[in-house]
Amino acid sequence: MKNTFGNNISVTLFGESHGEAIGAVLDGIPAGVEVDLEFIRKQLDLRRPVGKISTPRSEADKFQLVSGCFNGKTTGTPICIVIPNENTHSKDYSSSYGKARPGHADYTAFCKYNGCEDYRGGGHFSGRITAGLVAAGAIAIKMLDSKNIKIGTHILKCAGVFDDSFKNINDELDALNNKAFAVINDDKGKQMIENIEKAAAKGDSVGGILETVVTGLPVGVGEPWFDSLESVLSHGLFSIPAIKGVEFGQGFNCADMLGSEMNDSFKLDNGEIVTETNNNGGINGGISNGMPLVIKCAVKPTPSISKEQNTVDFINNENTVLSVKGRHDPCIVHRARVVADSVVAITLCDVLSQKFGTDWFGED
Amino acid sequence: MKNTFGNNISVTLFGESHGEAIGAVLDGIPAGVEVDLEFIRKQLDLRRPVGKISTPRSEADKFQLVSGCFNGKTTGTPICIVIPNENTHSKDYSSSYGKARPGHADYTAFCKYNGCEDYRGGGHFSGRITAGLVAAGAIAIKMLDSKNIKIGTHILKCAGVFDDSFKNINDELDALNNKAFAVINDDKGKQMIENIEKAAAKGDSVGGILETVVTGLPVGVGEPWFDSLESVLSHGLFSIPAIKGVEFGQGFNCADMLGSEMNDSFKLDNGEIVTETNNNGGINGGISNGMPLVIKCAVKPTPSISKEQNTVDFINNENTVLSVKGRHDPCIVHRARVVADSVVAITLCDVLSQKFGTDWFGED
Amino acid sequence: MKNTFGNNISVTLFGESHGEAIGAVLDGIPAGVEVDLEFIRKQLDLRRPVGKISTPRSEADKFQLVSGCFNGKTTGTPICIVIPNENTHSKDYSSSYGKARPGHADYTAFCKYNGCEDYRGGGHFSGRITAGLVAAGAIAIKMLDSKNIKIGTHILKCAGVFDDSFKNINDELDALNNKAFAVINDDKGKQMIENIEKAAAKGDSVGGILETVVTGLPVGVGEPWFDSLESVLSHGLFSIPAIKGVEFGQGFNCADMLGSEMNDSFKLDNGEIVTETNNNGGINGGISNGMPLVIKCAVKPTPSISKEQNTVDFINNENTVLSVKGRHDPCIVHRARVVADSVVAITLCDVLSQKFGTDWFGED
Amino acid sequence: MKNTFGNNISVTLFGESHGEAIGAVLDGIPAGVEVDLEFIRKQLDLRRPVGKISTPRSEADKFQLVSGCFNGKTTGTPICIVIPNENTHSKDYSSSYGKARPGHADYTAFCKYNGCEDYRGGGHFSGRITAGLVAAGAIAIKMLDSKNIKIGTHILKCAGVFDDSFKNINDELDALNNKAFAVINDDKGKQMIENIEKAAAKGDSVGGILETVVTGLPVGVGEPWFDSLESVLSHGLFSIPAIKGVEFGQGFNCADMLGSEMNDSFKLDNGEIVTETNNNGGINGGISNGMPLVIKCAVKPTPSISKEQNTVDFINNENTVLSVKGRHDPCIVHRARVVADSVVAITLCDVLSQKFGTDWFGED
Repeated sequence: MKNTFGNNISVTLFGESHGEAIGAVLDGIPAGVEVDLEFIRKQLDLRRPVGKISTPRSEADKFQLVSGCFNGKTTGTPICIVIPNENTHSKDYSSSYGKARPGHADYTAFCKYNGCEDYRGGGHFSGRITAGLVAAGAIAIKMLDSKNIKIGTHILKCAGVFDDSFKNINDELDALNNKAFAVINDDKGKQMIENIEKAAAKGDSVGGILETVVTGLPVGVGEPWFDSLESVLSHGLFSIPAIKGVEFGQGFNCADMLGSEMNDSFKLDNGEIVTETNNNGGINGGISNGMPLVIKCAVKPTPSISKEQNTVDFINNENTVLSVKGRHDPCIVHRARVVADSVVAITLCDVLSQKFGTDWFGED
Repeated sequence: MKNTFGNNISVTLFGESHGEAIGAVLDGIPAGVEVDLEFIRKQLDLRRPVGKISTPRSEADKFQLVSGCFNGKTTGTPICIVIPNENTHSKDYSSSYGKARPGHADYTAFCKYNGCEDYRGGGHFSGRITAGLVAAGAIAIKMLDSKNIKIGTHILKCAGVFDDSFKNINDELDALNNKAFAVINDDKGKQMIENIEKAAAKGDSVGGILETVVTGLPVGVGEPWFDSLESVLSHGLFSIPAIKGVEFGQGFNCADMLGSEMNDSFKLDNGEIVTETNNNGGINGGISNGMPLVIKCAVKPTPSISKEQNTVDFINNENTVLSVKGRHDPCIVHRARVVADSVVAITLCDVLSQKFGTDWFGED
Repeated sequence: MKNTFGNNISVTLFGESHGEAIGAVLDGIPAGVEVDLEFIRKQLDLRRPVGKISTPRSEADKFQLVSGCFNGKTTGTPICIVIPNENTHSKDYSSSYGKARPGHADYTAFCKYNGCEDYRGGGHFSGRITAGLVAAGAIAIKMLDSKNIKIGTHILKCAGVFDDSFKNINDELDALNNKAFAVINDDKGKQMIENIEKAAAKGDSVGGILETVVTGLPVGVGEPWFDSLESVLSHGLFSIPAIKGVEFGQGFNCADMLGSEMNDSFKLDNGEIVTETNNNGGINGGISNGMPLVIKCAVKPTPSISKEQNTVDFINNENTVLSVKGRHDPCIVHRARVVADSVVAITLCDVLSQKFGTDWFGED
Repeated sequence: MKNTFGNNISVTLFGESHGEAIGAVLDGIPAGVEVDLEFIRKQLDLRRPVGKISTPRSEADKFQLVSGCFNGKTTGTPICIVIPNENTHSKDYSSSYGKARPGHADYTAFCKYNGCEDYRGGGHFSGRITAGLVAAGAIAIKMLDSKNIKIGTHILKCAGVFDDSFKNINDELDALNNKAFAVINDDKGKQMIENIEKAAAKGDSVGGILETVVTGLPVGVGEPWFDSLESVLSHGLFSIPAIKGVEFGQGFNCADMLGSEMNDSFKLDNGEIVTETNNNGGINGGISNGMPLVIKCAVKPTPSISKEQNTVDFINNENTVLSVKGRHDPCIVHRARVVADSVVAITLCDVLSQKFGTDWFGED
C-alpha cells in the first residue's frame, strides 16, 4: 500500500505541491468522535512557516472535510480532507528541471517515474503533503486525549543546541503543544533560532533531533515481531521526509551500556508495577509496559540551500552547478514536530483499535 | 498482520522457544528459484551460538522445507520451514514464572495475553524464533545475489570497540559473510570478544551497533511516504528483538550537520550518475539512488544477566530480586547480524517484486 | 481496509450522497499512462440516470483530478478524483429518519454507527459513491486496453427478459460499451425497458443479471487459494450495492451438470491451447487459462419503491408504514453495468501488476 | 497476500498433496481460548473420505499444533497446524505429467509456474490443502460458539436432488453438524448418494449447492463497500476449490423478483427489530441486520473422472486423450461443507474482532 498506512484505522495521502489540492483520507475512525475544527486549524498552523526561520510562502492551509463528518461528529465512514493549493509559484521550479537538487528526490523520482513526475516544488515529495497528515493526526490526537493518552514532542537538539530534558512530562506536554517552537527551555530555543538564522545567512541549513513522548498508553498494547510498537511507529515516522533515524528509549546509546545499566528494573509504586528507569522507552518485546513511550527522530538539515552545489543535469547528462532558488526553510525541525505527533497518534489509534476494537474510542 | 510481513513476498513466523517447533512460511517467491540447502544451513550456523561468548545451548537447528520446493527449486507456492525444538530445559524457567526479568517481555506478555502466554524460555518472544527468519532470508539473499544485489553486515561497534569502516565494500562483503564474528578488522574483533568475556565474567552483558550495506540495488526502487525504503526496512528491522534504533546513512549524525555538508552532490562517473558522498545512505525521498544502502541498527545488551536485579513478582504482586539463571548470551550482536541481513533481503525482494513483478527474479 | 481495495494498485472511496463531495483515490498506477478525460466523462455518463427508467436527479458528475496527473499523463503518485455533490434535496430525507427503508442500510447503519451516520440520501451507502469507482475504473479500463485486454458487460436478464448470448465477443463488446442500455439485442432491451416502466408505474422496481466478459487476459494470471481470480473479483463485485450473487462460467448451473459435461476439454487451435467449452469461465484453479473470463452478477431490484411497506421506526421503536418518496430508479441494472466493468478492471490491473510489476503497464 | 487471508485474524496455508506436510498458520487468535483437540479431530473427519462415494485414499489426517497452544489454551501467538502427508502414491501421477486434466489447474499451474510446479496429486491445488483450513476453522467455530454464534451447512442440492429447507435453524444445525452427509432430510440424502453412485459407476461425477447459515451474529457487523460481509465472505469461499458461485439470501433469484417482493419488511417482535422475510440473507448494505446469514455456494462436479476426455499434452504440444486414474471422489459436495463452515467462521472471527477487538473473544 504505497500511500496508505494502517490496518483498522488507516490514512491515505494524495497530492502534489503545485497541483490543484493535497489531502488525506482517514478511514476506520469510529462514529461519534467530536471533530474539533479549531484544533485541526491550530495543528496546521504549527506546521506552517513562522517568522524568519521559515519559508515566506504563506498559506492559510484552508482545509475542507468533504466527507465523514456530520453534525460536528464523525460518521464512522472515510474522512476526506482536501487542502487546496494556493499561492504557488510554479515558475520558480520549471526552469531548473533536470538539475538534481542534492539531498532531494528529483533524480530518484525521475528514474522511478520515467520523467512523468510532477517536478514542480517537489511534487508529491514535497513536505507540504504532510499538511494532510497533520489534519488527520489532529483527529487521532483528540481521540487519544479522550482516553487520557497524551502525545507531545520537543526539539531535543537543533543547530548544535540541546533542550532540557523532561522533568514532569504531563505538565510540560501541555505547554509544549501550544508553542510554535517546541522547546522545554525557551532560552535554549532562542539559541537554536539564532544558530538557524546564522546558517540561513550563509545560505545553509541545519538539522536536529525530535523527542516524542506518549503518556497514558495502557500496558499490553502492541505485538511481538512484525507489529512491534517500534516496527509500526518507525514505519510511520520514516515516511516523514528528512527523517533519517528513529530510536526508542536509549536507542543508539544502548550500544555502550551494560545489560545491568540498560535493563529497567520493575518495582511496585503504590500497588502499580512501574520501572525504575525507562531505558527501553516504554516498550518490552514490542509491547507497551505502561511507562511513557520515548521516541527520538533525527531530522536532516533541509536539502534546499542557496549555497552553490555540484550536481548533474540528468536531462542533458552533464555535470553542472546549482543554487536552489525559491522560498525555503533553513530548518524544518520545528515544523516536523507536529507531523511526528500526528504519525504517532494515527499509529497508536490503529494499534489500540486492534486490541480493543474500533468501538472502544466511541465509548465513555 | 501480526506475524506476517510483506506484500508481494511475505514471511509469517510461528513458534515458541520450548514448544514443539518454530518456523516460517515464505510466500510469493517465484517458481524456479534454486534452493541451496547448504547456504540455508550455513546462515543458520552463523546465527547459532559460537564459543565462550554465546549460550552453551547447542542446537543443530535441523530445518525441514515441508512445502514449496520440488526437484531442488521453488514451486512458486508457500515455502514452509519447520525447525523442531530440541535440547530444551524447560525446568530452568518454570520456577521463576511471575518474576519479570527486566528488559524482557515477561511482564508485557503477561498483561497482553492474560497469563496464557507460553513463558518457557521467552516463548514466542525468544530470539530463537529468528531462526525461521534466517532460513527464509537465506532464500531471499540468494535471489538478490542472482540479480547481483549483495548484502552484508559488520559489527560497527561492540563493547566499546569500533570496527574499521568499509573501504571496498564488495570485497569486504564476501569476507564478512563467511565470518562467524563479522568484523572488517579481526584485531578489533578480538578486542570486542575480550570485552564481551569480561562483561560475562561479571555476570553482565554488552550491546553494539550493526552496519548493513546493500550494493547493486537498481535506481528508482521504493516509494515516497509510507512505503519509503526507510519505512519498510525499519519496520522489518525493529521486529528483531533487542534492536532499539535504526538509522540510514548519517542517521543521528545529521542533527549536527549543515545542509551543505549533509547533501550528497551528484556527479557523472564514467557516464553514470553517482553521488560524491553517501550521507543519505543510498536513499532520496524514500527511493534508491543507486549508491549502496547503509543501515545501522542499535542492539541493546542482552537483558538476561546473572547479576542480581530488582524486580516485581507479578503473580504475587510483590517486590523481589532476580538473578537470571540458565544458558544465556553475554552478547547477541554477532548473532543478530545474520538476522539483519535476512530481514533486509526479504524486504528488498518484496519491494523489487512490486516494481518488476514476482516473475522478474525467475528471469535470466 | 474498510474503504480501500487492492494491493499493488488500490482504490479508496470516500463521500456521502448529500455531503460536500464524493470521490476516490487510485494509487499504484504507473507513471506515463495517458489520462483520457473524455473517456472518464463518457463512463460517468453511462452510470448516470437516463430517461424515464432512472431517477430524475440529474447531475453532471463534474469530476476533478486534483492530483496524480501532469501534462495529460499519470505521475505514478495517487490520483485523487473529487466529484462535488450538487442538486441535493436533503429535505426529502430528513423527515423520515428513523423509519428503516426495507432492503436499505438505514437500520444497519444506525446500529453500526450509533446514530451518527449521515442518513441523507443513504449517506455513504448511496449508489452515488460508485461514481468515484467508475472514474477510477475508466483509467484502469484504458490501461488494460493498451495491453489488448477488453472488458464489457451486457444485461443478461432484466425484468424477466433475457438478452441474446455473445456470439463474437470482441465485436459485441465494442458496440455494448457505447450503449446507454447495454444489451446485445436491442429488441430485447426494449422489452426490458417496457417491463421496467410497467413496474415503475405500479410504484415497484425490478432486478436483473449482468454478464461481464474479459478477453485478452494472459494465461497464468491469478493465484491458488485466497487470491484466486474468483476470490478477488467477487470481493470487488460484492462491494457494489445491490449485488447479491456472483458466479463464474456456468456458476450455479454446475450443480446440475456431470463432470464430463462441466469439464472444458483442451485442444490445440492453430498451435494455441484453448478449451472446447468455457464452462469454467476462463479460470482453472484460480488462475486464468487464456479463455474469456465470464462473470455473472445478480442485481436485486432497487429497494426504494413508492409502494407502501411495513417497517419499524427505530428511533421511536414502533411499527409503522413507509412509502419511499424522492427521486428513485425503478431499475439500476443498466447503471450498475459500468460499475461492474470498473471493479473488474481495477482488480485485474492489480492482479496483473503483481505478476508483471507495475512498470509493465508503462511499457510499449 | 497470496496464501494469507484476513486482517486482525488471519490464516496462511501451505503444502502440496504429495509433499512432506500440509498445514496452516492461524494468527490473531486471542490468548485463553480453549483448544478442543477432539473437535478439530471431528471436523477433519467430516472432511475426510467416507464410504463408497469418496476416494479410497484413507488418511488419518494426524495433525500437530506445533505452536500457539499451551496448557490446553491458545497463547495469543500464531497457531501452526502441521498435517504430515502419508499414504501418498506419487507414481499414479508422474507418468501423466503434461496431459492437462480438464477442469483442473494442471495447465494454468504449468503456465504460471513455468513448469516448476509440484504436479503430484494436484500439488498446492489439491483439495487436501483444505485440511489445514478445516483445522484452523475448528478453532474459529469454537470461538464463535462461545459467543453463541452458530454456523452450519447442509447440502441444499446434489446430483439433481433437493434437500428440505430449514424450519428451526438452531435445532437443525446441531443435528447437521454431526452428520457425515449433511442433509436435513436423510431420505433426500439417500437419493443423492444413490445418484452419486450411479454417476461414479459410469466414471463420472456430480456437483451441488451448499447452503450455510449463521445465527446469533450481532447487528451492525461488517462494512459498506470493500469490506461488506458479502465481499469478505465470498473472497474466502471462492478460495475453496470447485466453488464457482456464491450468493446471499435470494441471490440470483432476485433477478426475477419485484422490489416489493425482495425487500424484507422490518417489524417489532417482542421488542426486537426483525424482518418478516430474509431475502437479503441477513445483510443490508454489507452489514449484518440480526437475521440469520444465508449463503449458498455452487460446487462443480469433481473434475477428476475416469471417463475418457480430449485434452492437450502441453509438454509435447499435441492433442491427446486422457482417462484420469488414481483415487478420486465422484462428488465432493459433502466434504466441501465443513470447509465452507471453516472459511465462514474464520472470516466472521476476523470481522468481529475488527469491531470489538481481539480481546472480545477472551471475555466471559
